[in-house]
Formats: sequence, C-alpha cells, structure tokens
Amino acid sequence: MPQAPTAKQYRASKMSEAKNSWVTASDVARLAGVSRSAVSRTFTPGASVSEKTRQRVQAAATELGYQVNIIARSMITGSSNFIGLVTAGFDNPFRSKLLAPLAHHLAIQGFMPLLMNADDPKQLEPQLRELLSYHVAGVILTSGAPPLSLAEEYLARKIPVTLINRQTELDGADQVCSDNAQGAALAAHHLLAKGVTAAGFIGENAYNFSTRQRHQGFEQTLTAHGQPLASIFCEKGGYEAGWDAAAALVAQCPDLDGLFCATDMLAMGAMDYLHRHLPQQPVLIIGFDDIPQATYAAYQLTTIRQDTDCLAQTAVNLLVNRIRRFEQPSVQKTIPVELVVRQSA
Amino acid sequence: MPQAPTAKQYRASKMSEAKNSWVTASDVARLAGVSRSAVSRTFTPGASVSEKTRQRVQAAATELGYQVNIIARSMITGSSNFIGLVTAGFDNPFRSKLLAPLAHHLAIQGFMPLLMNADDPKQLEPQLRELLSYHVAGVILTSGAPPLSLAEEYLARKIPVTLINRQTELDGADQVCSDNAQGAALAAHHLLAKGVTAAGFIGENAYNFSTRQRHQGFEQTLTAHGQPLASIFCEKGGYEAGWDAAAALVAQCPDLDGLFCATDMLAMGAMDYLHRHLPQQPVLIIGFDDIPQATYAAYQLTTIRQDTDCLAQTAVNLLVNRIRRFEQPSVQKTIPVELVVRQSA
Repeated sequence: MPQAPTAKQYRASKMSEAKNSWVTASDVARLAGVSRSAVSRTFTPGASVSEKTRQRVQAAATELGYQVNIIARSMITGSSNFIGLVTAGFDNPFRSKLLAPLAHHLAIQGFMPLLMNADDPKQLEPQLRELLSYHVAGVILTSGAPPLSLAEEYLARKIPVTLINRQTELDGADQVCSDNAQGAALAAHHLLAKGVTAAGFIGENAYNFSTRQRHQGFEQTLTAHGQPLASIFCEKGGYEAGWDAAAALVAQCPDLDGLFCATDMLAMGAMDYLHRHLPQQPVLIIGFDDIPQATYAAYQLTTIRQDTDCLAQTAVNLLVNRIRRFEQPSVQKTIPVELVVRQSA
Repeated sequence: MPQAPTAKQYRASKMSEAKNSWVTASDVARLAGVSRSAVSRTFTPGASVSEKTRQRVQAAATELGYQVNIIARSMITGSSNFIGLVTAGFDNPFRSKLLAPLAHHLAIQGFMPLLMNADDPKQLEPQLRELLSYHVAGVILTSGAPPLSLAEEYLARKIPVTLINRQTELDGADQVCSDNAQGAALAAHHLLAKGVTAAGFIGENAYNFSTRQRHQGFEQTLTAHGQPLASIFCEKGGYEAGWDAAAALVAQCPDLDGLFCATDMLAMGAMDYLHRHLPQQPVLIIGFDDIPQATYAAYQLTTIRQDTDCLAQTAVNLLVNRIRRFEQPSVQKTIPVELVVRQSA
C-alpha cells in the first residue's frame, strides 16, 4: 500500500481535481427553476418563501439528494454547531456509558460533538487548541485528565464550558455532579445496617474531586456512629489499583468486614483480591457508578448508581443556556444517586 | 433552569448579538500591518510569503491567540477534514477499545472524526444523512448495526467508505478485518492440544460476518481432526446472551469440555453460567477480542487478541488513500491475531 497522504496533501489534490460530487444549492436552483436565494430561504428556518416555491425546491432537493451545507451556514452565521467533548479513557466503562447519552442529547439540540481523547497528556493541549479552529460553540469536560487551566482559555474567549463530575471554581463555567455525599451516606448506612464494624475505603487519589467527596461523606456517617475507618488512596483508578489497594487495606485493618470503593472498577479489583487471598473472610463490598460489569455473576456488585442520562441531559442544557447568554452566574447542579443492592453487600 | 434554546434559536440570537469574540484573520492583519491576504498565505502550506511578513503575522497571531478557521478553509477548498465514524454500542468494550486508536490515527493525518452512534436503528438513517451536511471526506463503519445499504449512498456521492470487521461486496469500499480464520484455528488447535473431545461454539448470530468466519474456521479444524462440534447462535451479543447460550449448549452437549466463543463478552457470560450451574464440570474456555475485562482474576480468559491499533491504522490509511483517488479497486486487508493464554484454557 503506498504511503497515505496527509490532510494537507489531500486538500491540495482535491483542489487540483475536477469538480467533486457534492450537490450544491445552485444545482437545486437550476433544476427547480428558481433563484439560488430561493433555495437558501427554503432551508433557512423562519425565512420567507412562497409555498409553491418551497415545494418545487424540496422536490428538486430530494431528487438530487441535496443536503444543507452546515459548513457554509457556519460561515454565514459566524458560529458553528460543534461542541468539544473532552474525555479521557474511552475504555473506562463509566465514561463510555456517559458518551452515548451525551451524543444523544447534543443531537436533539442540533449540536455535533467533536470528541477529544485526553488520554495522552502531551497531546491534550494541542488538541484542545485545535478545537478552537472549529469555532466550537461550547465545551464539555468529563472527569479524567483535562486540567482546568485549559478551560480558562475557552472562557477567556467566551466559549461556554460545562464540567461533569469535576470541581470548578472557574467563573462562568457550569457544573453538573452526581450527589457524592448522598451516595457515600447511602453506602455507609447500608454497611452499618448489615452490622459492619471494621470498614474500609478505597479511592482513586485524595486530590480527585469525586474521590474526596465520596470519602468525606462515608467517613462522616461512620464517625457519627462511632465507627472507625481505614482508607487507601491509589495513584490511579482501575481494576489493578483496586486489587493492590485491597492488599494494603487488609494489612492496615486485618478485621476488615465492609468496604466502600469510589468506583466499581476499584471495587471489582478489590473483590477479586479478597476472594483470592482471604476466601474465608466475608467482606461486604459496595462500589460507585453501576457500570455494566457490576451485574456480572462473578461480581454481583452492590453499588451507587449514577444517573448517566440525567447527568448528560443536564450538562447539555446548562451548556446551551450559556451559549445563548454567556454572561450569567455559574450554575451547579447535583443529580441524585441510587443504592442498587446485589449480592456483594 | 429556563428551557434551553435549540441550535436554531441560538444561531438566531448569535446573529442579533454584538460581535462574538473570535479573532479573525483581519484582526491579525490589522495588528501586523499587512494585508488580509498575507495572513492567509502565511497559514496556507506551500503559499508564497516573505520571511519578514511571515514573522510579523505569526507574532500578531500569537499575541491575539488567532486560530486558523478550519470552517473557512473548508469553504474555500470545497472539502472538509471531517471523517464520519459510525459505530454501535459505546458500552461494548471492544468497540470502545477501537475508538481511541481510530481517533489517534485520524488526528495524525489531520482529520477530525464525527462520531455517530448507531445504537438506535430509527436514528441511524437521519444521522448518516446528517453526516452529508458536514461534507465528510470519508466514512469508517465499524462492526455493529449500520446496514451496508447506507454505505452505498456515500459511495454514490464518491465519499470513500472503509469497513472494519465487516463484510463487503460493495465496489469502491475498502475493508480491514482481523484474521478470523487464523484466530479460530489457533483456538481449535489449543483446545485439541489440551485433550478436548466435546467442543462447543457460541456466536452472536449466524448472519454476523465475524461470527460466521470464526465458526467456520473452528469447525474446519475440528472436523479435520475427526472431532464433533455443538454450536449455539444467539440473537444478540453480550454477557447475558453468553450465559443463556451456555445453558442451551450443555443441554445439547452434556459432556462439553471445551468452548470457543466469538467474543470475550459471550465467553464471560458462558463462563459464569458454567461456574454457577456446573461447578464440577471443567470446561476450557477461549474468547475472542482481548477486552480489558478478560484479564480480571474472576475470568483470566484465554482469548484471541485483535490488534486494535493495527486495525485502526490500516483503516485510516485505506480511507486516506481512497480520499486521494476515489477510482481504484477495492482493497481488503487482513490483520493477524494472537492467542493469549490465561487460566481459562
């Protein structure tokens, strides 16, 4: 296979090529026997055009397979309908679960997401700058890598920013968050009701916003009931981190009989470690997220379910409101969570 | 929160608003004290501009935070750098795993993916038509829902189409595929070497291209060794389908001692069913894909690893080649797979 051309080479070759095959508004006008402007008006919501002309234009458009050129429209209106969607770890099941409703709710509002993968910290900054080239109407940052300093660049250009499950003290950025305090209290009360007396907590790291809130809420409820808590914070999230943290936790708290983990992935890793190495010690385990794998028979994980559809819809609504009017106070929304009881606790 | 405006309302309000905050090429020209055309030439690869002018333009662009307007450039060249990326089931771990390298290799070539979720069959056709509005330079279809008839619409407009792990008899569409026959033979030889005499197969459905190839390759090798095969095809893929299929399989083949599943998800569901209901019957299990969950201690799944990075890079190269020159024979590429031995077989 010959070396593929770069986009630059492609554009150059396109320009030197014969006409490409896009049907233009002029083609439609020619077939319909109307002016180019009549075609424009037919496809511009609210614009004036006679019913007869509209019908002729639409018949010609259908026959030719004409599509409104969104790029041309963006040029005319000076703004695009692109939304930057910045996320890290496509293979993180919770963030994957959030992706579909985000794309869905953006589409309903007439927006198109431009997906940026923030996995590689070196690529992140150029990628976020690249989004500016597309004149994005707004940006949604999910949990994961993107540093908030980059959000400031957008806000400085009056590009609205909405954060999902991220802390913000940025003026003009909106935030939507699962109710971590409620979830942590639900987990604590459930374990206490089951008679747990030596509880543990595993979280991603103490600087992570969600981890911190979940830890705090869990500890507060236990303390209020006079119960101690042993906590382990990992460098990273994920299954292996949960496995390693469980080993550290039982070293610190040998009588461990109840465990709350800040994510389901951590909980699954911890559960497998405990089953493998302490099969005789029954430890009740609760996760957070409700990813699809939590339902698997090998785990049957009791967990705090995040309402991904509501998180996504709220984030899109906040963003669209700020797109309409940039200057307004920051809004924070909290989405209720739910305890889902399975066999692990 | 007030009702969010639609994109249409937003555009209308934008147009009536005071100037938005985008820095334009004219702003840069004004600050640099050069013509608008000198700014354009500075940012057009290969265009002629004096070194002194280039430096003045770049200094002004940096100071103002100017970004090349890709939308404007698309208008001028008549083609965009958007690639439609049509996939189904973001929460399918294998397809999520493919997403990151696809985005990465497209970015390297200067393209931006527009992600279309084909989960909802009713939304699919309008969404694929919508891609046309963005004058996409090409389309990549992964495994899952998108019917191939929709690919024909693109090809008719001379928009290149590349299929990943999909069958094609479409003229002008290129295809990249994991080596299903090789993978199936590796699985069969591994089970035969372990002494399996009553083998089973579970696949998504008999019409699925990958399932069919994996089944065929597995059966051929077994037949060549004089071994029988019991096969179950499910309506759908996924964990629950694997669980149900395992029940049906042991009903059909009570002595089952070896199992090859067309995906890891099916294998994990089947494994959990067998552990739960036939804990005394040792069944060696091999999956296909190598998703992150295959490594979990609860599964430790022996599997056929697909090389997602190579699949993605090859798909992008094929697409870019056809973008450069649409009229050329269809290309099919096969990517080698690898047996990864863990505890399940």
